[in-house]
Amino acid sequence: MIGASPYHRGVSGDPEQPRPVDVGAGRLEAFSDAVMAVIITILALELRPPQGSSLKDVYDQLPSLFIYVLSFVFIAIYWNNHHHLLRATTRISGAVMWANMLLLFWLSLIPVVTEWLHDFYREPLPAASFGIVALAAALSYSALVRAIIRANGPDSLVGTAISSDLKGTLSLVLYAAGVGLASVSVWIAYLLYAAVAVMWLIPDRRFTRGADRR
Amino acid sequence: MIGASPYHRGVSGDPEQPRPVDVGAGRLEAFSDAVMAVIITILALELRPPQGSSLKDVYDQLPSLFIYVLSFVFIAIYWNNHHHLLRATTRISGAVMWANMLLLFWLSLIPVVTEWLHDFYREPLPAASFGIVALAAALSYSALVRAIIRANGPDSLVGTAISSDLKGTLSLVLYAAGVGLASVSVWIAYLLYAAVAVMWLIPDRRFTRGADRR
Amino acid sequence: MIGASPYHRGVSGDPEQPRPVDVGAGRLEAFSDAVMAVIITILALELRPPQGSSLKDVYDQLPSLFIYVLSFVFIAIYWNNHHHLLRATTRISGAVMWANMLLLFWLSLIPVVTEWLHDFYREPLPAASFGIVALAAALSYSALVRAIIRANGPDSLVGTAISSDLKGTLSLVLYAAGVGLASVSVWIAYLLYAAVAVMWLIPDRRFTRGADRR
Amino acid sequence: MIGASPYHRGVSGDPEQPRPVDVGAGRLEAFSDAVMAVIITILALELRPPQGSSLKDVYDQLPSLFIYVLSFVFIAIYWNNHHHLLRATTRISGAVMWANMLLLFWLSLIPVVTEWLHDFYREPLPAASFGIVALAAALSYSALVRAIIRANGPDSLVGTAISSDLKGTLSLVLYAAGVGLASVSVWIAYLLYAAVAVMWLIPDRRFTRGADRR
Repeated sequence: MIGASPYHRGVSGDPEQPRPVDVGAGRLEAFSDAVMAVIITILALELRPPQGSSLKDVYDQLPSLFIYVLSFVFIAIYWNNHHHLLRATTRISGAVMWANMLLLFWLSLIPVVTEWLHDFYREPLPAASFGIVALAAALSYSALVRAIIRANGPDSLVGTAISSDLKGTLSLVLYAAGVGLASVSVWIAYLLYAAVAVMWLIPDRRFTRGADRR
Repeated sequence: MIGASPYHRGVSGDPEQPRPVDVGAGRLEAFSDAVMAVIITILALELRPPQGSSLKDVYDQLPSLFIYVLSFVFIAIYWNNHHHLLRATTRISGAVMWANMLLLFWLSLIPVVTEWLHDFYREPLPAASFGIVALAAALSYSALVRAIIRANGPDSLVGTAISSDLKGTLSLVLYAAGVGLASVSVWIAYLLYAAVAVMWLIPDRRFTRGADRR
Repeated sequence: MIGASPYHRGVSGDPEQPRPVDVGAGRLEAFSDAVMAVIITILALELRPPQGSSLKDVYDQLPSLFIYVLSFVFIAIYWNNHHHLLRATTRISGAVMWANMLLLFWLSLIPVVTEWLHDFYREPLPAASFGIVALAAALSYSALVRAIIRANGPDSLVGTAISSDLKGTLSLVLYAAGVGLASVSVWIAYLLYAAVAVMWLIPDRRFTRGADRR
Repeated sequence: MIGASPYHRGVSGDPEQPRPVDVGAGRLEAFSDAVMAVIITILALELRPPQGSSLKDVYDQLPSLFIYVLSFVFIAIYWNNHHHLLRATTRISGAVMWANMLLLFWLSLIPVVTEWLHDFYREPLPAASFGIVALAAALSYSALVRAIIRANGPDSLVGTAISSDLKGTLSLVLYAAGVGLASVSVWIAYLLYAAVAVMWLIPDRRFTRGADRR
């Protein structure tokens, strides 16, 4: 027993365990929801009101508002994907919990990067930093998917579903390209980041049909 | 499979899906709750204490307190309606999730607009901006209602209930009138916004009777 | 149907309602939890670190830390009571939802009053304002209890339990006395407020025995 | 009935209680999740963006980023352990609720201590204060574990699991050593704090095997 935390039993599948299996996933979802909800609202908190009351003052805030929209959509896409992923998950493990924490860590850096962009959106380093955090978040998400498949087995719902993830791979490529090209032009970087967001926002034909059929 | 996100399966109604159907709605509710809770408390965070300790200092803060009450009631009404709407919902779709995100986006702009009003509540543009955000939130709510009806079918509980929504339509008209008349007088605009809030606060005779009957 | 919000059906007890009855209370709890959690952490956010790194700098922050402890305990007591109250509740109504919102509104003013106290804890008006907000919160809680009894009937678990609430009444008296005596001495006011907190913190003999028996 | 809060009945195990037993633990988890989620994001909120857009400006923020990572991991470890502990819990009592509140109180001081460290991380007192808060949180966690065992009985899942908790005891020793040695060298203190974090991060062999077996 030495060196082993006894609390882990709750997850390790003790047959006398009094709570249903999916409680674990439920609380993982709830905690992730809470963190993402606060991140989204911290983003809103950083949005400063216009300095005056004229149309020009509003106009001066437009870049900040645009950056806010990008970051909001970024977090919203993660929430949606996280939601779909966890719904197909029946078993969680310690690796799943830590991969999820890693994802939340990178998402929690979005507000500070966004705030940096409010002041220096024309500079290559801040522009690249958004891509770096986005890339790290995307890689953590991949690690989370793999940890979930390992915990649920290759024949599980998640295991069979993840046969190909073109969108995920393409996102990684576009973020990496954005980071690399930020020193050439920050606008190319923003265009590539926005392209990823648009790609995830476009409704999935197969999925929509599925929802209609129900 | 190319171009399709496999995670969507969880929602598309796979019969082997291990979790009950309403888990989706449950997490949608939980996330919306968390965002609205943080919005309400960010509003409270923006409330500055009086500058001194005299009655006059308190008096100087009264307009801010009044604006806070308005914004609190505004979010509270949305929470209540959202609660009732989601309770009658059994199925959610991707469109429902994104319409909900759009609603949360507009609600997340309430704090920054409120903060703007703290400083410039006598100016037409800030006064109109509250109405614009309120209008956009109300339209997003309508889109959410329609998406839910589409996902649940016209014969569902939600579908049959939404035969007429006079209050919703009247809210849109009053907000639009407030935006238009803010340049004439900001007080007319505030009166119209407050009228919408009062309209939703008055208990519904039919509903109260229903609750008594139980 | 005109003038009636159709969304209320979910609560008005429609027999075909697809979700179990207590989902409503569940979401009410979840939203209240989220608001109280954010209030508690906003209080922590207002706690400024010492200005320097010496023991004297720490000492200068002690009044602020003490005020934080009081406010934390205040919210914690409400959370605990709210938890017990809602657990005994099976039915909620529109009146319950709005009484709950009123309670959350007054609790949301605790951080701004606390912040005011950080700067002016020796002045009568800020000292009285804490009591006024506490009194208003306590009255809202009473309104919530009454609304829940009305919704659940006098023979329900809640209805029979609330035969006498000495602690609640005594709290109201002590808060009111604190508000009245703040102009005589702020320390008497703080003593009375702290007395209420201590009264609620002392474990309940009957309750403890009940828990042991299980 | 005098002097007894009637609301406690919900927890004291009344047989007519309409809700399932684990709702209490569920809400305790939800509230703790919300508080810990907000603490984690307040930590992120305190992270200031670099002052300029050059690599040197980023470099100047690295100590702050490192402190943020430490605090994030600290809260994440507590969330994980809390999750495992509560999953093995079937009954909660008033003592459990207050021990949990005490734990949340100490965790809520992590952001202000972290903020203090951002400015004075080379000074012994701030360095020691992190250890003091960490020690107090660890002791509160022990109190929570004991309260849960008392409420669930020594033969319960929790009771049998907590036969030896070497990791917990070692954490207390390392934190205390860090506090004591901070006046000798702050770096020794940080090393000891980081050692505790690493110790908890290393996956548990027994646990991992358990998860694989499922």
